[in-house]
Amino acid sequence: MNQCYGCNTCKSADKPLEGFIQSLPMETSHHRVEKQSTKCGFGLQGVCCRLCANGPCRITPSSPRGICGANADTIVTRNFLRAVAAGSGCYIHIVENTALNLKNTAKIKGELKGIASLDHLADIFGIKEDDVYAKAEKVADAVLGDLYKPEYVPMELVEKVGYAPRVKRWKELGIMPGGAKSEVFKGVVKCSTNLNSDPVDMLLDCLKLGISTGVYGLTLTNLLNDVLLGQPELRMAPVGLRVINPDYINIMITGHQHTIFVDLQERLISKEAIAKANAVGAKGFKLVGCTCVGQDLQLRGAHYTEVFDGHAGNNYTSEAILATGAIDAVLSEFNCTLPGIEPICDELNIKQICLDDVAKKANAELLKFDFENREEQSDIIIDKVIESYKERRGIVPLNLMKEHGNDHSLTGVSEGSLKAFLGGSWKPLIDLIVAGEIKGIAGVVGCSNLTAGGHDVLTVDLTKELIARDIIVLTAGCSSGGIENCGLMTPEAAELAGPKLKAVCKKLGIPPVLNFGPCLAIGRLEIVATQIAAELGVDLPQLPLVLSAAQWLEEQALADGCFGLSLGLPLHLGLPPFITGSKTVVKVLTQDMKELTGGQVIINSDAIESANILEQIIMEKRIGLNI
Amino acid sequence: MNQCYGCNTCKSADKPLEGFIQSLPMETSHHRVEKQSTKCGFGLQGVCCRLCANGPCRITPSSPRGICGANADTIVTRNFLRAVAAGSGCYIHIVENTALNLKNTAKIKGELKGIASLDHLADIFGIKEDDVYAKAEKVADAVLGDLYKPEYVPMELVEKVGYAPRVKRWKELGIMPGGAKSEVFKGVVKCSTNLNSDPVDMLLDCLKLGISTGVYGLTLTNLLNDVLLGQPELRMAPVGLRVINPDYINIMITGHQHTIFVDLQERLISKEAIAKANAVGAKGFKLVGCTCVGQDLQLRGAHYTEVFDGHAGNNYTSEAILATGAIDAVLSEFNCTLPGIEPICDELNIKQICLDDVAKKANAELLKFDFENREEQSDIIIDKVIESYKERRGIVPLNLMKEHGNDHSLTGVSEGSLKAFLGGSWKPLIDLIVAGEIKGIAGVVGCSNLTAGGHDVLTVDLTKELIARDIIVLTAGCSSGGIENCGLMTPEAAELAGPKLKAVCKKLGIPPVLNFGPCLAIGRLEIVATQIAAELGVDLPQLPLVLSAAQWLEEQALADGCFGLSLGLPLHLGLPPFITGSKTVVKVLTQDMKELTGGQVIINSDAIESANILEQIIMEKRIGLNI
Repeated sequence: MNQCYGCNTCKSADKPLEGFIQSLPMETSHHRVEKQSTKCGFGLQGVCCRLCANGPCRITPSSPRGICGANADTIVTRNFLRAVAAGSGCYIHIVENTALNLKNTAKIKGELKGIASLDHLADIFGIKEDDVYAKAEKVADAVLGDLYKPEYVPMELVEKVGYAPRVKRWKELGIMPGGAKSEVFKGVVKCSTNLNSDPVDMLLDCLKLGISTGVYGLTLTNLLNDVLLGQPELRMAPVGLRVINPDYINIMITGHQHTIFVDLQERLISKEAIAKANAVGAKGFKLVGCTCVGQDLQLRGAHYTEVFDGHAGNNYTSEAILATGAIDAVLSEFNCTLPGIEPICDELNIKQICLDDVAKKANAELLKFDFENREEQSDIIIDKVIESYKERRGIVPLNLMKEHGNDHSLTGVSEGSLKAFLGGSWKPLIDLIVAGEIKGIAGVVGCSNLTAGGHDVLTVDLTKELIARDIIVLTAGCSSGGIENCGLMTPEAAELAGPKLKAVCKKLGIPPVLNFGPCLAIGRLEIVATQIAAELGVDLPQLPLVLSAAQWLEEQALADGCFGLSLGLPLHLGLPPFITGSKTVVKVLTQDMKELTGGQVIINSDAIESANILEQIIMEKRIGLNI
Repeated sequence: MNQCYGCNTCKSADKPLEGFIQSLPMETSHHRVEKQSTKCGFGLQGVCCRLCANGPCRITPSSPRGICGANADTIVTRNFLRAVAAGSGCYIHIVENTALNLKNTAKIKGELKGIASLDHLADIFGIKEDDVYAKAEKVADAVLGDLYKPEYVPMELVEKVGYAPRVKRWKELGIMPGGAKSEVFKGVVKCSTNLNSDPVDMLLDCLKLGISTGVYGLTLTNLLNDVLLGQPELRMAPVGLRVINPDYINIMITGHQHTIFVDLQERLISKEAIAKANAVGAKGFKLVGCTCVGQDLQLRGAHYTEVFDGHAGNNYTSEAILATGAIDAVLSEFNCTLPGIEPICDELNIKQICLDDVAKKANAELLKFDFENREEQSDIIIDKVIESYKERRGIVPLNLMKEHGNDHSLTGVSEGSLKAFLGGSWKPLIDLIVAGEIKGIAGVVGCSNLTAGGHDVLTVDLTKELIARDIIVLTAGCSSGGIENCGLMTPEAAELAGPKLKAVCKKLGIPPVLNFGPCLAIGRLEIVATQIAAELGVDLPQLPLVLSAAQWLEEQALADGCFGLSLGLPLHLGLPPFITGSKTVVKVLTQDMKELTGGQVIINSDAIESANILEQIIMEKRIGLNI
């Protein structure tokens, strides 16, 4: 464990982390950036097609069509639609499991921690039912029923959950989604071999997939989670590698499906489990947050103080978390579980268990979550984790990093907790915006990647630039993990804000960057925006509100982005999707979209330039609102 | 129209076609083979990953993992699973529309041409119902109900349609599929970013997708089609470009969904439509077959002699069909509708109408088939086609090719018509096989491509080699189109067979290659095989039966192939799928599969070598059966 694997890692916005990774004796994703730095231009531009056995074909000036005749527009859009459909599928998988877990919990009259959220959902859905469990079951069924509709039958909740002016526009564009699973299915079929060749038709499908992703996968997943897991409450929490306490048996969790952990969370703090832990020399069990499920646990951390140590970091921090040597098991249930953790788990003798077979890792054990047998499964997991602890602790050396992160990041921010903090109304926030004390709102959302300047580099730099311009930043996704580990969610970060936002933060005792948690919480940002727009009597594209998925990584982010575009919001990306080989696609996304939905894609990898563009848009929107 | 575009086209097994294409004044796919001949080695091997914004990443000896840590096994299998899932989705889309069309027809008590097929299906499904329309609706509902089940609920018809020894094995392997649409959905999610990394787990999913593809997309689509469109009847038919009669208004059809044409087929031969055609100087309307929907129409041609001219050719003949100048419109409803026909349609002023939005072509008009308004839609189509005829005929020069193809290919072969031909029992065929008069059966199925030696070159060469070895060939798919245009489905082709098969053919007056029609009819081959196996009391892998998708092209073919593997059959491919970068995947498909299902993939691009391998396998199976 003594020799460092190599210092040629990518940069990180998180300098202590960068140093820690450079000192590690094993290869991580940060090391592989350099090895994979020669990129294929065809792939980057999206003009490589490998759908059929005549291929792969690549578009060049002298060969403007593939063998079948597909041109750059067709090839690029097919590739893009397939990615968006897959990304949407990921979120729909999550909301389906979440609704199922709520339904199953209601059936057995299990604990529902968020009755107010349940009432709110029932209200939106038009469900009248006195019995809380019957109500919860009907709410879950309403979601599941929509997901399984055919593509040619519109989902019912879109109109109920969506903002009315948006729904009107979506109808005008003919992009009201049918059953969400069938929309994914159809999207994948459309871009198969020798089917659709129409770029605009396929891009409209991307918007449709964006709507179902946003309404169900993002918005409703959060609200269903709130019912089962409890509503977020504001609090200060420690973040970073410091949260790992080697005195406990530590379980790193990765994924997006918090409801899968309900039973385990309770059982890990039971007397029986703690006794078992004590028997092998540990104080008990702790869950260590990683990726979005960690963000979600952090968000609701007020309900889980005993079992949850804190959020250690995002997807590209996961290898470092393991490298501390103090993690005894990884429980994963979805992405963003990097394949790169597998050799590290092997090397450090860390037990890997996958709880959902869609995310089965090659050398992990699969213990597919089964609601009916959840208690037995929790017992099995506990025993396996204890076994792992026994086999590795004392043998695998610790390499802790207690100075990483900070101990007082604001967490628990949601549309509900923030509104409550503001006194039960958005008026104080609106007044600050109207008065120019806050210039506008930027949602810095989505993933963390390693290639837009390095790990979280653009995300953090852009966030700093935005707050320096008095633009308040709301975050959701792995981006949150990087930003919080860099200290921007501590109240002291107010010092980095522009004079007006700084004054607001100091007065309210809040940081200039508010963490809504997992990428799923993009749905919460949409609720905030919608409620503000409704109070102002305007449509979303009129708000001084911009989105940036500066370091988007995954196909899911593309589906999120399409939701943002369907909402009519400006969407900044640090790196382009693989679309630049098609002038048509680039034009539709960056220009024509303004006419279609009011949204637009802005691609810029420079933090200052990006902030200037976003500020400019915010200023234009302010002028449009006469403020 | 005088100057030829370039003679540097790929070879074709069909020499007259090759010459015709070389003489054309416009670019075709055959010309583009040369321009796209520099292939990307990463793409060919499947070791290029472009799922996320850190990519594209490529696996090399010095860089054995992508940035995220995915290795060649993971990257290759993810790419492969996604292709199989998309291909399965295509077939499931087809069976869904087919079942819907049957259901809607039953609801209005429309014409059902195949009552015997309906009774047969009702029998298999366990549906007891006297009223024919109620019965048809229940049959359709049984299929649709299964397609929409969640992934965690097994489909009911698999056990009813599947061969019992196979179903037993599938259960042992845990690959009984849940709802077919959800299986596609799940397959796509599994191979998204940072989810599944387990090659074996994903390959088992491919088998599962193969089963749902085969049982529903292949087998049941045919049987549902038989109910609506009439059962195939043996007859001799003309094939090739010669079928195009310039005295008529000609509509080339492409796709896979024959039931979409039911109303139009009738209406085109109505007095009113013919009068309209006469008024513009044409004798009437003719449908010109192309791709699989043309094969299906040819297969059932006995019912459509008046409106159907014949099958002109497969996917890569479509540009030549248009180049005759005598096609006035293209009606497409699915793949394999090459994007390359679009510029040719533009140049020759040929109207393009798409009847299913999954296959919307960029410069075509979309008139999405709508059962309720089918009559109005047919009228609209007829008027548009007449308009096109008026605008182009006399202006666009004709370039006919009357010497192409032949006028007496055997068609109408199905599990039903062939068995009837044999006297209502498979015993005569079994006796011939047992006696060694027929050494075995080869299903030469799937697509036509341009890169395994050229257009249909390997397919036709292999077919010749197989029949020369006294192996009877059954075909289904675009491969059929090439083989029939090359004359192998005429009775005279018996001369090319080995002495024993030749004698059989001469005695029965049949060709040595029997055309089951569209790729969908792979399901019919499975029925033949199953009935023979049942009569012999053996499982499918024991039969002297091999499959070759020698020139597979599309993602659909990969799903078909997985069906073949799940059936336990040896599957020859001329070109490998993009999997050769993973030793694990290659080993599982070519070796371990023998233990899993009894199947195996054989990759060989040489016709003689391939035929030797397949003959060897057949001989081994014969020994296994003691014959």
